[in-house]
Amino acid sequence: MISNNSKHAAPPLQISQWFNTNGPLTLEELRGKVVVLEAFQMLCPGCVSHGLPQAQNIAAAFSPDNVCVIGLHTVFEHHTAMTPVSLRAFIHEYRLTFPIGVDEVGTGAIPKTMSAYGLRGTPSLIIIDKRGYVRANHFGQVPDLQIGAEIATLLSQANDEEASHESSSTKLDGCDDEGCSIPEKK
Amino acid sequence: MISNNSKHAAPPLQISQWFNTNGPLTLEELRGKVVVLEAFQMLCPGCVSHGLPQAQNIAAAFSPDNVCVIGLHTVFEHHTAMTPVSLRAFIHEYRLTFPIGVDEVGTGAIPKTMSAYGLRGTPSLIIIDKRGYVRANHFGQVPDLQIGAEIATLLSQANDEEASHESSSTKLDGCDDEGCSIPEKK
Amino acid sequence: MISNNSKHAAPPLQISQWFNTNGPLTLEELRGKVVVLEAFQMLCPGCVSHGLPQAQNIAAAFSPDNVCVIGLHTVFEHHTAMTPVSLRAFIHEYRLTFPIGVDEVGTGAIPKTMSAYGLRGTPSLIIIDKRGYVRANHFGQVPDLQIGAEIATLLSQANDEEASHESSSTKLDGCDDEGCSIPEKK
Amino acid sequence: MISNNSKHAAPPLQISQWFNTNGPLTLEELRGKVVVLEAFQMLCPGCVSHGLPQAQNIAAAFSPDNVCVIGLHTVFEHHTAMTPVSLRAFIHEYRLTFPIGVDEVGTGAIPKTMSAYGLRGTPSLIIIDKRGYVRANHFGQVPDLQIGAEIATLLSQANDEEASHESSSTKLDGCDDEGCSIPEKK
Repeated sequence: MISNNSKHAAPPLQISQWFNTNGPLTLEELRGKVVVLEAFQMLCPGCVSHGLPQAQNIAAAFSPDNVCVIGLHTVFEHHTAMTPVSLRAFIHEYRLTFPIGVDEVGTGAIPKTMSAYGLRGTPSLIIIDKRGYVRANHFGQVPDLQIGAEIATLLSQANDEEASHESSSTKLDGCDDEGCSIPEKK
Repeated sequence: MISNNSKHAAPPLQISQWFNTNGPLTLEELRGKVVVLEAFQMLCPGCVSHGLPQAQNIAAAFSPDNVCVIGLHTVFEHHTAMTPVSLRAFIHEYRLTFPIGVDEVGTGAIPKTMSAYGLRGTPSLIIIDKRGYVRANHFGQVPDLQIGAEIATLLSQANDEEASHESSSTKLDGCDDEGCSIPEKK
Repeated sequence: MISNNSKHAAPPLQISQWFNTNGPLTLEELRGKVVVLEAFQMLCPGCVSHGLPQAQNIAAAFSPDNVCVIGLHTVFEHHTAMTPVSLRAFIHEYRLTFPIGVDEVGTGAIPKTMSAYGLRGTPSLIIIDKRGYVRANHFGQVPDLQIGAEIATLLSQANDEEASHESSSTKLDGCDDEGCSIPEKK
Repeated sequence: MISNNSKHAAPPLQISQWFNTNGPLTLEELRGKVVVLEAFQMLCPGCVSHGLPQAQNIAAAFSPDNVCVIGLHTVFEHHTAMTPVSLRAFIHEYRLTFPIGVDEVGTGAIPKTMSAYGLRGTPSLIIIDKRGYVRANHFGQVPDLQIGAEIATLLSQANDEEASHESSSTKLDGCDDEGCSIPEKK
């Protein structure tokens, strides 16, 4: 469900390395578009089976003039197993074509952007509206029907408009047990 | 893709028998809601595997205050095999809970509502906006992502508003080969 | 799991109408082949989604010289909804190509062949060995891996051989909740 | 289809590191059992979606007294991306429980065991009979029905018996386009 709280500005992306781009992307330059962040780990089964295919489908279903899909490699476990060298081969083998950034290493196990967004694990799908506010933050598997509705609701909003039409109608629970949660004690 | 042609008012439903309702439904009384018509035949494999489950999911994902899903049993072949007696058992076994109307027999093989809407076969999914205009008419399989976006786009529209925000961004082709087409020569 | 009880001769098929054959089939004339009976109801969701596709796959995977797949329409509920007229259209729409017999009406709700085999509901998959003995009687969904193993085990047996190599190695439980059970009290 | 050529003895496994075992496995000590080798690469999409789940299902469906499933990590591309450090995390995240060996680095891109078995790519599924002969070598996706039949056919064979009952009845083609092929020119 889309949040009506328009005060939560999306934190900046803190990225150590980009793939599938000509240069670094910033949320500032994407104002006016709806931005979908797909946070994943390359060895997270739920990301491979559900999260990343959904992100690919979103990128195919909406015009890049309106919706920008960005992958965020948020490694919080098995750090030595999921280095950028392995990620590059993963992106190639799974034919991912949207921009993907490696979340910057933090002080603990959790990388910086993941911390700033308060993610619970992977896959997580964050939707940012045209004005740069975080409007949805889903952990786990979310039905395509719901995601399509949430994105379209934000697309229907004028660039400078306050949130007025809420998709509060969607009642589905987006979480399943295939996601990788951050362990409780860290 | 949602049509921008606001002149095509939805023809009235011509129904010989209703299931899952307390009485006949009319499109007039549903003004102010988005109406989704799922046209199907109970022995159409694509309807059973894709169309009807999608209709059930739409009914579950959106509030009935905003979106009304109606099944339309549009038999255009094997008429003696798909009588209301068989349909009643089908609805029970497949646990369909949204209202379902039997399309009235026409002068030829094609029933009346199916003719009036110009459907090409089953499954077909028609989306009618809050003002009673037909805005989408899909034949075959359509991705959930697209349908969710189309419904939400129409929900974002005020009740008396002209179509302004088109979901022209959805580029997916909704047709596959699992639908039952009306034979060319009739 | 294949039963080692070689004493349970398969009861004769009691069929009121055949489809996809040139004439009636009898188990006697099929001696020397492994016979797979797929008991189904055309309005049973688990039969449509799992049982019948599996039967089609079995018919495609094994040579008809070795394995004979027969559908058995065992209607035990909604009798007026699943008449041969409807079944004929169902077979046509779902492109079922193996022989299908309509189980003869019994004295109660349960048809005659279904009673004789002691089936619990639909879908049920019965495997009869080359000598005419019932060796497996599965209710519900059974994995392809297990069914393939059971059929091949019986194929490996000489025509006059006693059962010697049991596929007791398969440990999977073949039942799920998608089957239609005969109500307890009848 | 199971090969009738009983002269092709299975080459020895050349493994640099084992997972999920107490020590190295050899084919010699597995004589008397049917051995299933699942050759995979951890970043091969067809291995993740089909090959490895099928191997897990085989290990669950047959008794370990009769059938031994072994994974073989045959990296022939992106070598630096699929090191044992990454493989260990992959095995943990995907909850693979059968023994897995890392194929020994060869002189070129192709590792040693992969060369010795003449594999075309990943996933490949090799079936070795009780006497140690290679009887099937499938590249790509193979239906469970066929694999179950092939294993059971070999289980039905006595330990010292020549191949007599061929499952030549299986007609399915086991290859799809989701496998990773070794490039033609190397």
